[in-house]
Amino acid sequence: MGMVGGGSDAFIGAVHRCAALMDNQIELVCGCFSINPEVAYSSGKSYYLPDSRNYKSLEEMIEKEKALPDGERMDFLSIVTPNVVHFQAAKLALESGFDVVIEKPMTFSLQEAYDLKAILEKTGRTMALTHTYTGYPAVKDARARVANGDFGKIRKIVVEYMQGWLSSREELNPISNAGWRTDPKKSGKAGCIGDIGTHAMNLAEYISGLKCTSMCADLTAFVEGRMLDDDGAALLRFEGGAKGVLLASQIAAGEENSLFIRIYGEKGGLEWHQMEPNTLTLRWNTKPTEIIRTGTNTFMGETGKFNARVPGGHPEGYIEAFANIYRNFARVVAAKRDGITPKPEWLDFPTVDDGIRGMQFIETSVQSGYENDKKWFDWAK
Amino acid sequence: MGMVGGGSDAFIGAVHRCAALMDNQIELVCGCFSINPEVAYSSGKSYYLPDSRNYKSLEEMIEKEKALPDGERMDFLSIVTPNVVHFQAAKLALESGFDVVIEKPMTFSLQEAYDLKAILEKTGRTMALTHTYTGYPAVKDARARVANGDFGKIRKIVVEYMQGWLSSREELNPISNAGWRTDPKKSGKAGCIGDIGTHAMNLAEYISGLKCTSMCADLTAFVEGRMLDDDGAALLRFEGGAKGVLLASQIAAGEENSLFIRIYGEKGGLEWHQMEPNTLTLRWNTKPTEIIRTGTNTFMGETGKFNARVPGGHPEGYIEAFANIYRNFARVVAAKRDGITPKPEWLDFPTVDDGIRGMQFIETSVQSGYENDKKWFDWAK
Amino acid sequence: MGMVGGGSDAFIGAVHRCAALMDNQIELVCGCFSINPEVAYSSGKSYYLPDSRNYKSLEEMIEKEKALPDGERMDFLSIVTPNVVHFQAAKLALESGFDVVIEKPMTFSLQEAYDLKAILEKTGRTMALTHTYTGYPAVKDARARVANGDFGKIRKIVVEYMQGWLSSREELNPISNAGWRTDPKKSGKAGCIGDIGTHAMNLAEYISGLKCTSMCADLTAFVEGRMLDDDGAALLRFEGGAKGVLLASQIAAGEENSLFIRIYGEKGGLEWHQMEPNTLTLRWNTKPTEIIRTGTNTFMGETGKFNARVPGGHPEGYIEAFANIYRNFARVVAAKRDGITPKPEWLDFPTVDDGIRGMQFIETSVQSGYENDKKWFDWAK
Amino acid sequence: MGMVGGGSDAFIGAVHRCAALMDNQIELVCGCFSINPEVAYSSGKSYYLPDSRNYKSLEEMIEKEKALPDGERMDFLSIVTPNVVHFQAAKLALESGFDVVIEKPMTFSLQEAYDLKAILEKTGRTMALTHTYTGYPAVKDARARVANGDFGKIRKIVVEYMQGWLSSREELNPISNAGWRTDPKKSGKAGCIGDIGTHAMNLAEYISGLKCTSMCADLTAFVEGRMLDDDGAALLRFEGGAKGVLLASQIAAGEENSLFIRIYGEKGGLEWHQMEPNTLTLRWNTKPTEIIRTGTNTFMGETGKFNARVPGGHPEGYIEAFANIYRNFARVVAAKRDGITPKPEWLDFPTVDDGIRGMQFIETSVQSGYENDKKWFDWAK
Repeated sequence: MGMVGGGSDAFIGAVHRCAALMDNQIELVCGCFSINPEVAYSSGKSYYLPDSRNYKSLEEMIEKEKALPDGERMDFLSIVTPNVVHFQAAKLALESGFDVVIEKPMTFSLQEAYDLKAILEKTGRTMALTHTYTGYPAVKDARARVANGDFGKIRKIVVEYMQGWLSSREELNPISNAGWRTDPKKSGKAGCIGDIGTHAMNLAEYISGLKCTSMCADLTAFVEGRMLDDDGAALLRFEGGAKGVLLASQIAAGEENSLFIRIYGEKGGLEWHQMEPNTLTLRWNTKPTEIIRTGTNTFMGETGKFNARVPGGHPEGYIEAFANIYRNFARVVAAKRDGITPKPEWLDFPTVDDGIRGMQFIETSVQSGYENDKKWFDWAK
Repeated sequence: MGMVGGGSDAFIGAVHRCAALMDNQIELVCGCFSINPEVAYSSGKSYYLPDSRNYKSLEEMIEKEKALPDGERMDFLSIVTPNVVHFQAAKLALESGFDVVIEKPMTFSLQEAYDLKAILEKTGRTMALTHTYTGYPAVKDARARVANGDFGKIRKIVVEYMQGWLSSREELNPISNAGWRTDPKKSGKAGCIGDIGTHAMNLAEYISGLKCTSMCADLTAFVEGRMLDDDGAALLRFEGGAKGVLLASQIAAGEENSLFIRIYGEKGGLEWHQMEPNTLTLRWNTKPTEIIRTGTNTFMGETGKFNARVPGGHPEGYIEAFANIYRNFARVVAAKRDGITPKPEWLDFPTVDDGIRGMQFIETSVQSGYENDKKWFDWAK
Repeated sequence: MGMVGGGSDAFIGAVHRCAALMDNQIELVCGCFSINPEVAYSSGKSYYLPDSRNYKSLEEMIEKEKALPDGERMDFLSIVTPNVVHFQAAKLALESGFDVVIEKPMTFSLQEAYDLKAILEKTGRTMALTHTYTGYPAVKDARARVANGDFGKIRKIVVEYMQGWLSSREELNPISNAGWRTDPKKSGKAGCIGDIGTHAMNLAEYISGLKCTSMCADLTAFVEGRMLDDDGAALLRFEGGAKGVLLASQIAAGEENSLFIRIYGEKGGLEWHQMEPNTLTLRWNTKPTEIIRTGTNTFMGETGKFNARVPGGHPEGYIEAFANIYRNFARVVAAKRDGITPKPEWLDFPTVDDGIRGMQFIETSVQSGYENDKKWFDWAK
Repeated sequence: MGMVGGGSDAFIGAVHRCAALMDNQIELVCGCFSINPEVAYSSGKSYYLPDSRNYKSLEEMIEKEKALPDGERMDFLSIVTPNVVHFQAAKLALESGFDVVIEKPMTFSLQEAYDLKAILEKTGRTMALTHTYTGYPAVKDARARVANGDFGKIRKIVVEYMQGWLSSREELNPISNAGWRTDPKKSGKAGCIGDIGTHAMNLAEYISGLKCTSMCADLTAFVEGRMLDDDGAALLRFEGGAKGVLLASQIAAGEENSLFIRIYGEKGGLEWHQMEPNTLTLRWNTKPTEIIRTGTNTFMGETGKFNARVPGGHPEGYIEAFANIYRNFARVVAAKRDGITPKPEWLDFPTVDDGIRGMQFIETSVQSGYENDKKWFDWAK
């Protein structure tokens, strides 16, 4: 794999590298790690890359890698830059014959998302979007149980993602990565709702198997001087009649990274907390609450088991969830390269369609979130 | 105390009796326990009342008690009938010179609530409303901390009350008390949002010290054939700029009685779960999360300490929270009788004003909850 | 009921009164509340007793109550004095025709325990010992499941009771009730192991249905100047081959009242924490962990249900557990008075036999706990 | 790195590889993965090794790697075979100039442990022992707090490691790795107490900074036909007067991998659960309980922060704890190679001395655990 972005001053690039490397399926072979050439060079060096593949620009990387012989050049590009650059990097890589992994949100605008899908269809290449939280084994097990009808028809979905790190003007701290996240020029139309609200919605749709169809949102920038929302809430309606609520906040003082979902059907419900991700709680109308645990024999779904690495009681964390996306993506890339039909469980990673849903969600949230009169907004197209 | 309602076939009457009696401040001296005369009689007998004070009707009870000498007649009446009867019973008692305790919701309609307040003002009598959940010591401590400014200005309030017991048509079960709760003739305009949503809103306003000013709600009757809402959600706006979300559901399959609140301010936030009521969690931007526990020396508020009975680690429960309302009410009744000025901490129980807020909340919820166009509704007056 | 001890300066007496009164089965009719006559008098007055039954001494109380007509005199005596007085008070009451409730530990010495049993057998009267923790509904359900063989043969029992309140010399605080508890003249041979270790052992034997047969203990007084143990641990062996560990500490800094038990059998195990007493966790070799909750339909045991007051999700606490002992005791006392055969579930309260086990446990613990050579001590007889 | 053991039929080898690779500091360059040549070959192939470095025997690997030029040959050998082979593999590697990582328990016998230390001293090479649980950031923070004196003098240590997977004769399952663990010829003198009791003792000594000096143990093989202990408990005494209890069980039915420690000092105490490893609970005599979380700014210890990879709320798991040992070891190996003095925080991984303590613990446990008369055994030398 090659990487664009992810220099030693960034957070998420390091996570991508750990996740990609840990399963001994992927090597980091080249990169262009920063727009700052010194950071780029020193980062690549610290990642043990030879100078010849520690590139100064994305364009140089794509050109030189393309020229390398099969088996030696990078197989895919991992894009971990700020949002604004995602689309152009992905376009260049895909059209040059490389598969791509993109950090979310997928693009800067909804139009770019549609364009990206068209490029993927035209080039026939593979793309993964790192909506990490659906990589957790317990989330996959939850999805399997809903799909299996264990809870009956789904009625109610409550999903929330609470953080407190933007309770004050963290963006004034020059070494914080709050800067670009709160800057509309780099982040797009939405702040909190785009940064973490998208994860919450993606998780809700992934587990429930239902698409949200309309929303009534209220977005707020609580911290004075902030240009994008730092808090949002929305009433939701889903296909088939289910209703829901989504909460996303970065001013929930003292909260770390509390992504938390509950889904209720006619017969029972489930609950999952990202911060204790190896526990899935099942509640029932007529029998005791059950605690399902990653890695034990209590998982019903083969997909859940397939995505666990260690026996029950040995906690799997965020990096392992991330690695599940990379591992499945790598399996599919290799299968396509080798002319093998991917197994269904390998295809279980977020794709361009999840990215489009995410951009549509941001669009709808922003339309509704500052509206004072009209109650319901249909999902943006 | 006398009691109307609360026969041996009812749930909440028994709780009222335990709560009233446990502190050795109140005796049950008379009652009229059911509209079914046999149930009424046998109930009173099983509560060890003499036949002479085991009455057949409220009217009889009020008349005969009034005729008893001072010190012998009941001091106050506890009203634990279905909602529809609350107002007339309270009116009769108050105008006959008795103080009253009323189970919530206070009245059947908002107009009755206003009328009740007028009667209280005219008679100068004392009334308590059993919004039980504000009786918990940890809730009182939470309120004291917010009032003290510990968290800075409040920004966000998330309150929810999730139950699952009405996931199917429990109201068809003749021995269930779901019957009257889901019947508009007995319960009023609202189902779930009136039965438990009112508790959630009362708790939010009690702890935060802020009044809700407008709402955008979505109410649903998920179970086929049900005549009143069994689920609701609302976006909230509070005075001073705080925002919030309220969830109430009786179709959250598998949930017991999960009243749960989080409040976030500029500097920190708090979390409290009714089902583990002796723990109050405080989160902070700049220091570790703290666990405050009932009965230990970690309570800041004198009111919290005053309402705890046993040392830390000896759990206090629902009946004790209930008993705190009765105990404080009894202190005030006795003080007024004896011409003593009640201490401020004695006055800490829900009153007619809480009841009016509750009825206004039901009114606003119902207005907004079935509306498809208009987004925000100002709080009903 | 009458009460000896439990003046307004004591803690446990107030709990006894709440517990006795809350179910409307028992009234406080007389008492002798302190050896300090002023405290005794003012206490009785504040409990609304007439001067005529607010006694100055136990002897006076017994004598005058005996002289009252049937139906008017107290039915039983509740003994909540320091340990050293328990036996003589119980003896006098029993031999005068009154049933008794005794706060634990039952007596000052093992010999007194045997003597008390003899007196009970001779007089045919009824006695309850307030080993409160077996009064919790979830504990009763746990016992029923073990007895039902759900877990297979029991192999391992781990019980602990951790407090931190004696981490420093609390006994030097004159208003603390640490004074008599750490004084061998008032408490007996043991400190912590007698005060709370007895509860832990009682709980282990109650749930498991197994008797401990031998122990290897290590007792310590960690705080300088303390005369009795403030910490203990023991390896245990039970009849039938089960093994166990008991921990009791009053120097576990920061712990409140953490009585906590786990029992493992061939097929599964259970876990219960007194500080969150409405949850019983069941673990299994071959199925998911189950959460059983007080008041819901998940209780297997009729006895568990019978001892719960409110529906699931409305927490029951320490006073309710206490009240279950009083309520069952009162039912038995009334049944015997009325010539009715008590139902089996009424007989579910701790008796003189539990008290004897407790005194034997103290004896064995002290024998073993300071021994350096011999490993195992058979249970004292 | 090269690896001996860890073929595709083994569990722990895969964890070692994930842990070693994830930080992009270590590559797998060669191995001899099984004594079964087919498994060995196919495993190496599946790990992308060239045939030339996919060896048939340890001897071949050592010989051929030694012959490779500097910078190309493996830097160190990871030994993940059954216990019985550890010593001979380590000896050969060390004496051939390779550093080693050894899975615990370090050796088969205590004598081998001493011999290994002598070899290390003679060769001057570096060794790490994968006592994984001390790799967790929260454990390192706990150790720092104890060392800092936050809790005052330590009085009490309670450590336990509960598993249920050997509740029946799992060793009869041919594909289970219970086989060699319950076989004295492959595992040594101890079963459960060696397999997991050693982890518990290592954790207790690591966090407390205190050495255990004597023990009184009770070991049991509960499952019929089992040749080694599957359950153990011990009373402990530590230098400086602290006391403790250790529990280890593999028949605690339904338990997954519950390593759990509490340490109490004069002023406060701490609690950590391996199954939720990102939370460290601190309790205090005079202030509220505090929750310290991995990756947040609440960590006091630099070493704790240094060993965390992701921000607070993004859970780190077992593999990350494991990786901390590999990463620190790799830093030290590289530093020694490059003539740099390792930083103190790099040296924070378990060494031969921890391995010797572990073998001494097994020796002492077995001496005491089947003894019926003598109470205390001094720590084996």
